[in-house]
Amino acid sequence: MKSPTPTTNPLPDGSQLAALDIGSNSFHLIVARIEHGEMRPIQILAEKVQLGAGLRDNRLSYDAIQRGLDCLSRFSQVLQSVETERIRVVGTNALRRARNRRDFTEPAKRILGCPVDVIYGREEARLVYLGVAHSLADDAAARLVVDIGGGSTEFVIGEKFEPRRLESLQMGCVSYTDRFFADGKLTKSAFKHAYDRACVEVSHIRKSFRARHWSECVGSSGTLQAIETIVNAQGWCDSGITRKALQRLRKQLLQFPDFDSIALEGLSESRRSVIAAGVAIAEALFDVLEVDSMRTSRGALREGVLYDLMGRLQHEDVRERSVNAMMQRYAVDDDTATLVARRACMLFKATAEAWQLTQADGDLLHRAALTHEIGMSISHKHFHRHGAYLLRNSDMAGFSQGEQVNMALLVAGHRGKVRRELFDDVGTPERRRLQRMLAIIRLASLFKYVEQLEELPDFSIEASDTILRLGFPDGWLAQHPQTLHELDQEQRLFRKLDLSLEIGERTATDSPSC
Amino acid sequence: MKSPTPTTNPLPDGSQLAALDIGSNSFHLIVARIEHGEMRPIQILAEKVQLGAGLRDNRLSYDAIQRGLDCLSRFSQVLQSVETERIRVVGTNALRRARNRRDFTEPAKRILGCPVDVIYGREEARLVYLGVAHSLADDAAARLVVDIGGGSTEFVIGEKFEPRRLESLQMGCVSYTDRFFADGKLTKSAFKHAYDRACVEVSHIRKSFRARHWSECVGSSGTLQAIETIVNAQGWCDSGITRKALQRLRKQLLQFPDFDSIALEGLSESRRSVIAAGVAIAEALFDVLEVDSMRTSRGALREGVLYDLMGRLQHEDVRERSVNAMMQRYAVDDDTATLVARRACMLFKATAEAWQLTQADGDLLHRAALTHEIGMSISHKHFHRHGAYLLRNSDMAGFSQGEQVNMALLVAGHRGKVRRELFDDVGTPERRRLQRMLAIIRLASLFKYVEQLEELPDFSIEASDTILRLGFPDGWLAQHPQTLHELDQEQRLFRKLDLSLEIGERTATDSPSC
Repeated sequence: MKSPTPTTNPLPDGSQLAALDIGSNSFHLIVARIEHGEMRPIQILAEKVQLGAGLRDNRLSYDAIQRGLDCLSRFSQVLQSVETERIRVVGTNALRRARNRRDFTEPAKRILGCPVDVIYGREEARLVYLGVAHSLADDAAARLVVDIGGGSTEFVIGEKFEPRRLESLQMGCVSYTDRFFADGKLTKSAFKHAYDRACVEVSHIRKSFRARHWSECVGSSGTLQAIETIVNAQGWCDSGITRKALQRLRKQLLQFPDFDSIALEGLSESRRSVIAAGVAIAEALFDVLEVDSMRTSRGALREGVLYDLMGRLQHEDVRERSVNAMMQRYAVDDDTATLVARRACMLFKATAEAWQLTQADGDLLHRAALTHEIGMSISHKHFHRHGAYLLRNSDMAGFSQGEQVNMALLVAGHRGKVRRELFDDVGTPERRRLQRMLAIIRLASLFKYVEQLEELPDFSIEASDTILRLGFPDGWLAQHPQTLHELDQEQRLFRKLDLSLEIGERTATDSPSC
Repeated sequence: MKSPTPTTNPLPDGSQLAALDIGSNSFHLIVARIEHGEMRPIQILAEKVQLGAGLRDNRLSYDAIQRGLDCLSRFSQVLQSVETERIRVVGTNALRRARNRRDFTEPAKRILGCPVDVIYGREEARLVYLGVAHSLADDAAARLVVDIGGGSTEFVIGEKFEPRRLESLQMGCVSYTDRFFADGKLTKSAFKHAYDRACVEVSHIRKSFRARHWSECVGSSGTLQAIETIVNAQGWCDSGITRKALQRLRKQLLQFPDFDSIALEGLSESRRSVIAAGVAIAEALFDVLEVDSMRTSRGALREGVLYDLMGRLQHEDVRERSVNAMMQRYAVDDDTATLVARRACMLFKATAEAWQLTQADGDLLHRAALTHEIGMSISHKHFHRHGAYLLRNSDMAGFSQGEQVNMALLVAGHRGKVRRELFDDVGTPERRRLQRMLAIIRLASLFKYVEQLEELPDFSIEASDTILRLGFPDGWLAQHPQTLHELDQEQRLFRKLDLSLEIGERTATDSPSC
């Protein structure tokens, strides 16, 4: 677990880092090397996998999964030289929506050796912004960054490296192609439908994102770069994309009867099938947000993931900030949160080896302990459920969906009955880990009712595969019948975690300090 | 709907008010008359119905429902002289828990002529405090008020008329009798189990409720009054209840083999079966919260309901404060909330007659409009669902469960698809009303995207049983294709509300002002 005052810890020169973006349209890989404390890209790969096109009724088709895994197998060769903890793999809209995402993420993990973090739309927006901000001059003016992806479009207003407003809308060039141009025909009415729908989506964020809130607009993503290439090649504008140029491009596109016949200088073969949807979305956002012109940036999600990863490895983890923000917003009692986090840390250290828990598990436990009481701001009744709701549904910068879901599980299950449904959506390999982490947070929060009033004595902790044994000083439990009673109850409940809790006399084992 | 600056509006002398408390153990009725601006009770009735004893697997038995309705029929005779809007009926733990509560509340409404508001535990605590505070000297010291009910026990710390901390725990003299003394035997071990369980419950609130946080402790409820009567009659203490006296009472009780043989001076026949559970709960809270002595007050829930009702009728409605608090806590944009509330008010006024909506419906719409964006503090994505979650689960002083559930429904359904499941838990008579209110809030929030940027023109509103017709000035819709498009979508969605939305030219009808 993190020490209370983290120190920055620069990565040595020559270290390699990698980021892999599993997008709805393309997969992007970037490998970079640290030189004089800066990142220099040494390899960039992109493949148009169109994972999103394989989504039907929120399930990925077998073919799409296979296309994706094949691509990862190729990419994995390049990743051989990078240490696993220096690789981060993120999945976006197609995986967010796929209910059978595990059919992809589990084999992907085996191929890559590291997990696929499926991230929420606003986290995606934050990371895109980070990537774009690093590619731009460091001026202080507020900028709007837009990224039209395959399944979603991200909007961020920020200054320098700080995103201020984040939004992610469910519209992208792959999903809109599917929805409005499924037959591959380019008709005025299909285009108008796509444009109208995009206007409705964008109008919902108009108030906070329109021109008066920023001084320049920057586009990221392949779609906007493709549009820029075309309109510049046609001479409709000199650089970037202007609104007029976009209108001319639309008119030009509608001259062609269908995707196959599109012939425009600068438009690659692989973009032909999604350019119409991309232009409809772009024109809608130009009109609704009052954008006159936009420049583009090559910085994108993969670069953002890389900079974020560098931050994590140097102990500037944005997740710490997110947890602190949640604790403040929901007026958590710091003393209690810290008590429980410290006790969880102690139990984690004493059991990590026997229970095969990783440092990442320890971090997650720490963060769940710090936020376990946030739900009290809604109501004391069922506060564990409310806290879980907040952790599952809030935009928490830096966290993947999976991390938020697991924290929510630990908070939901930290008190009361151990409901089997808690683990309904958890895969078998993760279940065992989460059961053990739940055992830890349950005990840590059980002890808080004593620790709020008096110091807890040193007690011994011994763990084996299925047994956790706590040993208390002679007579202490007899003097604390309430705690004894609650531990008795836990013994019964631990069985539902496939664990056995034994309570006895303190042994010579030292419990670790935290 | 309330005007923005409510004026107090004292009730004329001679007005009658009534409060009816449908408790888990007893039903209590109080009728009072206003004299010189003060309330004077003119009739007080109580019947030990033991509704809670008829709960099995969270369903009320037929017999229990019948006992309850019979009692209401008798009480209704006394209520003849009181105007319906000056009667408030509240239901507590037994009805909170009963999944088939409508089998009771619907016939109850027919008998009484006014609805039964099922209230949450913390709202019950707030009302008990109000009742107790009015019965005590107006000194400024912090006090702990405890009310051991049939199914739940309420704890409040407050000063004067202001409750500061509210808690409601799931333990009461009827439910504990059921759980620990089901066979009617008085054994040491049964008593210990009940006491231990109560200690566990109370220990969870010990930190905020123990002795250091208050200077006197006041007990409300029949159970505590019965205990006081016995211990004073036995001479174990002169007045109130001391911890020592409570211990002596427990020892004395355990001399009797079973409920039927209990013979204690001052104990009424009807209390014999629940006194042991009551003493176990009382002793646990004395021990855990470090209470040495307690005095009792005759002020209780029914008095609290009466004072709250008087406030409402005089436009000092605590619900306004609760809504403001929610808006502040979740950092709602006031301008937008007010826009939507005003538009909802206009639509309400224009439709209320044709759609048979009451002033209470208008108030609910107003409050739903003010809070429709609170969920954005969790995430913009699905913010309507998050807002509904908060409205359903938060402790909102002054609101009944039903009001919170209905506000949540209006917020959940105010945008996006109209899901049929929204109305799953709504009874048939209410459904029609809520469908119409949902139509109003959907339109009000649709217009906000225009109103945030420019003034909306006057438009005409005409409602008949199944049709809502909006008429816009000539050409306005053509200039606002976005709004036209969204209204088109609503036309389709209104069918799911069994309504038909017609859009046309403005007629001479004036739209009401708000």
